[in-house]
Amino acid sequence: MQIGEALLAPSSQTWLLEGKFGLEKEHVRVDLEGKLAQTPHPHIFGDKLAHPFVTVDFSESQLEMITPPMDSIHEALGFMETIHDVVTENLDNELLWPQSMPPALPEDGSQIPLAQFDSEHRALAEYRRFLAQTYGRKKQMISGVHVNLSFSESLLENLQRESNHSQLTQTEFKSHVYMTAMRNMMRYRWIMIALLGNTPAADNSYSTICPDLPEVVPQTCCGTKSVSVRASICGYRNNEEFTLNYASWPQFHRSVRDLVDAGKLIHEKELYSPIRLKTNLQTGEITHLEVRLLDLDPTTKSGIRPESLHLLHLFMLWSLAKEEPAPFDAAQQRIASQNQYHCACCGYDSKILDANGSPFPHSPKGAVRKFLQEIANLVPDDAPNNYNRSIKFFESCLDNPENAPLEITRKGIQNQGFIPYNLQQAKNFQVNSLHQNFRFSGLEDLELSTQLILREAVLRGISFELLDRSENFVALTKNKHTEYIQQATKTSKDNYATILMMENKLVTKKVLQRSNLTVPVGGHYTDLKHALADFNRYKSQAIVVKPKSTNFGLGITILKQNSDENHYLTALKMAFAEDSSVLVEPFIAGREFRFFLIDNKVEGVLHRVPANVMGDGSHSISELVRIKNQDPLRGKGYVTPLEKIQLGDAEKLFLETQGLDFNYTPKNQEIIYLRENSNISTGGDSLDFTDDIHPSYKQIASDAAKALNVAITGLDMIIPNISEPANDDNYAIIEMNFNPAIHIHCFPFKGSNRQLNKKLLDYLGF
Amino acid sequence: MQIGEALLAPSSQTWLLEGKFGLEKEHVRVDLEGKLAQTPHPHIFGDKLAHPFVTVDFSESQLEMITPPMDSIHEALGFMETIHDVVTENLDNELLWPQSMPPALPEDGSQIPLAQFDSEHRALAEYRRFLAQTYGRKKQMISGVHVNLSFSESLLENLQRESNHSQLTQTEFKSHVYMTAMRNMMRYRWIMIALLGNTPAADNSYSTICPDLPEVVPQTCCGTKSVSVRASICGYRNNEEFTLNYASWPQFHRSVRDLVDAGKLIHEKELYSPIRLKTNLQTGEITHLEVRLLDLDPTTKSGIRPESLHLLHLFMLWSLAKEEPAPFDAAQQRIASQNQYHCACCGYDSKILDANGSPFPHSPKGAVRKFLQEIANLVPDDAPNNYNRSIKFFESCLDNPENAPLEITRKGIQNQGFIPYNLQQAKNFQVNSLHQNFRFSGLEDLELSTQLILREAVLRGISFELLDRSENFVALTKNKHTEYIQQATKTSKDNYATILMMENKLVTKKVLQRSNLTVPVGGHYTDLKHALADFNRYKSQAIVVKPKSTNFGLGITILKQNSDENHYLTALKMAFAEDSSVLVEPFIAGREFRFFLIDNKVEGVLHRVPANVMGDGSHSISELVRIKNQDPLRGKGYVTPLEKIQLGDAEKLFLETQGLDFNYTPKNQEIIYLRENSNISTGGDSLDFTDDIHPSYKQIASDAAKALNVAITGLDMIIPNISEPANDDNYAIIEMNFNPAIHIHCFPFKGSNRQLNKKLLDYLGF
Repeated sequence: MQIGEALLAPSSQTWLLEGKFGLEKEHVRVDLEGKLAQTPHPHIFGDKLAHPFVTVDFSESQLEMITPPMDSIHEALGFMETIHDVVTENLDNELLWPQSMPPALPEDGSQIPLAQFDSEHRALAEYRRFLAQTYGRKKQMISGVHVNLSFSESLLENLQRESNHSQLTQTEFKSHVYMTAMRNMMRYRWIMIALLGNTPAADNSYSTICPDLPEVVPQTCCGTKSVSVRASICGYRNNEEFTLNYASWPQFHRSVRDLVDAGKLIHEKELYSPIRLKTNLQTGEITHLEVRLLDLDPTTKSGIRPESLHLLHLFMLWSLAKEEPAPFDAAQQRIASQNQYHCACCGYDSKILDANGSPFPHSPKGAVRKFLQEIANLVPDDAPNNYNRSIKFFESCLDNPENAPLEITRKGIQNQGFIPYNLQQAKNFQVNSLHQNFRFSGLEDLELSTQLILREAVLRGISFELLDRSENFVALTKNKHTEYIQQATKTSKDNYATILMMENKLVTKKVLQRSNLTVPVGGHYTDLKHALADFNRYKSQAIVVKPKSTNFGLGITILKQNSDENHYLTALKMAFAEDSSVLVEPFIAGREFRFFLIDNKVEGVLHRVPANVMGDGSHSISELVRIKNQDPLRGKGYVTPLEKIQLGDAEKLFLETQGLDFNYTPKNQEIIYLRENSNISTGGDSLDFTDDIHPSYKQIASDAAKALNVAITGLDMIIPNISEPANDDNYAIIEMNFNPAIHIHCFPFKGSNRQLNKKLLDYLGF
Repeated sequence: MQIGEALLAPSSQTWLLEGKFGLEKEHVRVDLEGKLAQTPHPHIFGDKLAHPFVTVDFSESQLEMITPPMDSIHEALGFMETIHDVVTENLDNELLWPQSMPPALPEDGSQIPLAQFDSEHRALAEYRRFLAQTYGRKKQMISGVHVNLSFSESLLENLQRESNHSQLTQTEFKSHVYMTAMRNMMRYRWIMIALLGNTPAADNSYSTICPDLPEVVPQTCCGTKSVSVRASICGYRNNEEFTLNYASWPQFHRSVRDLVDAGKLIHEKELYSPIRLKTNLQTGEITHLEVRLLDLDPTTKSGIRPESLHLLHLFMLWSLAKEEPAPFDAAQQRIASQNQYHCACCGYDSKILDANGSPFPHSPKGAVRKFLQEIANLVPDDAPNNYNRSIKFFESCLDNPENAPLEITRKGIQNQGFIPYNLQQAKNFQVNSLHQNFRFSGLEDLELSTQLILREAVLRGISFELLDRSENFVALTKNKHTEYIQQATKTSKDNYATILMMENKLVTKKVLQRSNLTVPVGGHYTDLKHALADFNRYKSQAIVVKPKSTNFGLGITILKQNSDENHYLTALKMAFAEDSSVLVEPFIAGREFRFFLIDNKVEGVLHRVPANVMGDGSHSISELVRIKNQDPLRGKGYVTPLEKIQLGDAEKLFLETQGLDFNYTPKNQEIIYLRENSNISTGGDSLDFTDDIHPSYKQIASDAAKALNVAITGLDMIIPNISEPANDDNYAIIEMNFNPAIHIHCFPFKGSNRQLNKKLLDYLGF
């Protein structure tokens, strides 16, 4: 069985689309006028050589972003988007240039700053000086996207079995597979350029370094057919076209080494091939391939469309499956390069040649259509929908070119000019990034608190591994220091005994009392008889009857005036229905505040209020809700820090009890509550009180944390009057939580971002 | 309503028998011949002034044991029994004298060693020299039992409400209640002596210090009527009978102070009253009463019968309820003392006088019978049965005096002599204590591991509080150092992240792999499709298919030879039925060993084998099981370190599969297994291998503990051959447990006690 057939065998289908996916891309930093930034790489990212996600490429102003290998395109892209957002947030009056072709460059190329390294890394600086000299600084400013991709190990094992390659070792078979894919990728790469090219133009300042530019882009600023300046003869390529030996991996590798040995390349990595094979440095085994021909897509924030990546992935599988017409020799290599350059200039109007050097039997467009059909046949029936969606997207681009990203870019540049269009896009994308600052795209299934920790890890260059994703269990590592964290706040800083104390309300209370802190002091009962016999003890007081362990408030009753023994009995029965241990406590009137403490220091104080709107004298309740819900922090289903206010039965009923309905127009400044409960999950607001509460309550909270010896806790305190200094009788500690959420303090409805993700990572020694 | 009536009101019934109960007792240490020990207080108990449970009284040889206040008589008594057991275990060739009257004393009283104190506590030594001079050393060697008792606060509140004492403060009412109880207790104390007295004789060596002894105990060594030498005129009392003012608590307290001021007593505590009221040193409020008239009961190991304590408790409630015939003035006090001394000498043959100084209308025995009826009326219908059992016990002692402890003691002494009888009892009790060394009596509802920790706390003088008894959550405190511990091994030494790692099999494996330790490496699946598609990967291997989180082994399948895809599918389905995450791992052949580690050091290695018997060539299987089950370590229902082997259907069936039945007589040394599973809970044996395993495995275990940064863990390792040094392929770590049991290492079926309770407390800094 051929590998192409083996790929389609049922046993391959489960693994066909699996693998590892990593992305790298560059963006030139520009000032708010679209001029190349002359500032150093932002200090906040620390050591550019140590940072796993954010570094620089050729120029100090050419920021490079790198994702780790991820399990899906969605995650890799999300990770890249998050790096992009984090970088954007941390630029100071600068923007990320969304185009592969550089912005306005200084006329004098020598004013383009080379990447700066300390004296320990002189070789890196040296290499950049060599590149500047050999290719020119302006050409080195072209940016792009690289896609790292490996096939699933299970797929490779299966292919080897099914295609009867048992005479090869696993390593040899793997080389065979990746070489096959690489050769066809090289042959047919013009298809990718036709579909994905997105540099139809360049700034005028670029023309000085490529005399051929007018040929590539006939009009001054933008050609009508040009697809990819970057992939054209004016693009990023070696000065000489090298011929390589593609017969096998060892031969290929040898032929590249030969170029270095002959002094034609200073280093293997100077070979600007559209694809590279990457190996494990220890074993020499091929680990993955790196496709380097994607232009940044300036129509989308992160510069990469998911459709493009899914297409590229299918293209590589297709390349693996496709029978090769002839050995990929020098002549074939020349034809393939020529096809690339032609297509980069003229797209579907190019003269594409086949393996024999004859014009293609179909038109280029026809060939691309056929390609799209062929990859559609590769997609398994139960594949994730985004693969088929990608194929459909590019088919529709063929039918309606005006919808294709390339044509949207071209039109934008034609209408506004190269610099203004890309600058406007950069500004739009900046706004979008700033609205996403609570989210880790691609890892949206994690809790928001964990997403915030990982965003901060990206900023600080802390590598992480999701040890158990469904449990939000991560390992963070930087400079050989590893911390294991579950759900953002379960860390190595807390000791187990303390956690167990907090888990147990009874024990928490006893330990706080030992330190003379005020808790609701009542009775603890393990049978109804004793609890009931104490009725007189609680008579005529406001009390709370509750099970020792409560879930979602089940079995809790508040008796505002405990005067009827039957009501008391009913409350006890409800509590005992939930737990064999029941607490009867005085009910303490006042507002409840959540204190977030790290290392005995209060880092945030929050109070929650029920879903509400404030009137302006002209909008109705339903209109005010709609307006309030437009806040990007409000979403549905716990994917955002706040939830949208609903206009449902519960809200309707609650308004009715106030004699109101959704059409009522509240007076200016009038506050209308739509719910009784203050849960964020039902549209409640979180209000930051960190700077507004009397400091004595912070001292109380800190003393409580010390009493339990807890490192990280969310302490709930009832306070009747936050301006009055604390004394023994005007507060009560209700609960201490060992797994408090952090996002509510970072993105309150009202108040400052308390940056608990930063503070936690500081505390953990990162 | 009178207090007596209020006690019987329904609202009082729930609280009537509740309160706090504490015990104190002394035992003279003797050598194996019954002579007073001349050795110092055992060093193992440390500072005698700081130890909360074990100290000395008058003499260095007079060991005093003290329990904290407990919630029930059962617990107080159990605690005392445990102190007794722990002390017994830690005496070196000495015994605890089970009698209140001292053993053979040196003829020269000055050879009785006074308690030794360092120079800082000169006053304590001084006081003992004063006592020796005033009362004689021999008299001070009389030992006894003190019972500390308080009524429940809810009862007191209720009594005050029901008896319309609202004009009094709570504190005043409490004084009123305890004074009432004290006066009647003083009046009727002869009843307690009649029922509970247990010193019918004294050693001849004692006669030198009490010239009246022949009158008290007419025969040389034991009278026929004598009840309590200790409560007699030869007993432990002041040289003068003092008259006190019992009108109210302040007046009473003043009259005692007056004696001190007048120089008649060196200190309030020199007043040897049968009852004392104890107060809170800060508030002056009465906290409890201390009844001091119990003789040690030499017919029972701890010297205290539960029946006696329940009787005494009812006596104090009865004293509170009983209407007082007249003010307890000087005349009444004289009559009450006279009744005591008479009764101590002649029991029911005494001339007991009533309040008027006239002989009792009934015989003393009749009066006691009436008393027993009256207290029976006090006991609420739903009271714990042991109160009624106590009353019945003493009624039966009246009917059949030969069954009464007093008469058993008298008979023993008459038959064997005072010294030989008590010495024999001491030796019997020693054997019993040594068999209880895994148990904390009174706290038997705690897990055995926690009981072992608390026994060791008793030995070391570490105070403890049960913060949440059902959770085995305790606070241990010594010298201001507090540790919170749940289930013996959940401590402050472990950090939370490590616990979470151990809780999660997937994470444990990943972290161990990061440290190059061998774990079963397989696949982790979250859907059936992928797991099934990997069939070929595991084909023809021995594998285990299991849910990520297992409970009691549910959903685990071992496929010894994974060749049939259908079997593999079935195993996967069973695993996915239990969890959405499933692991497929190679099955590793070998025996499983439990390594217990503290601070990276292996402290115990254990292997478990199924229930079995070893033949002797003459007994049948059922007989061998019966013999093996006699081991005091074997019990039923997890109250002992090992479980009794059953002769049930499961065992019968398993024997049948071997062609055997219970009547089969195994050959000498033949081992017959009665179960397939090796659980201790079904009669399995635990075998200690700590000293038998190749040290390289201990190194592996230690490396694993370091990898997870765990302080206390139970690591399960499969090892095919424990003599062969460990390499990467001949072991596998299966699991690390964050809550390993310790008792299995302390009381294995075969091997040494690894004293993990001691090692854990060492590690916790005690």
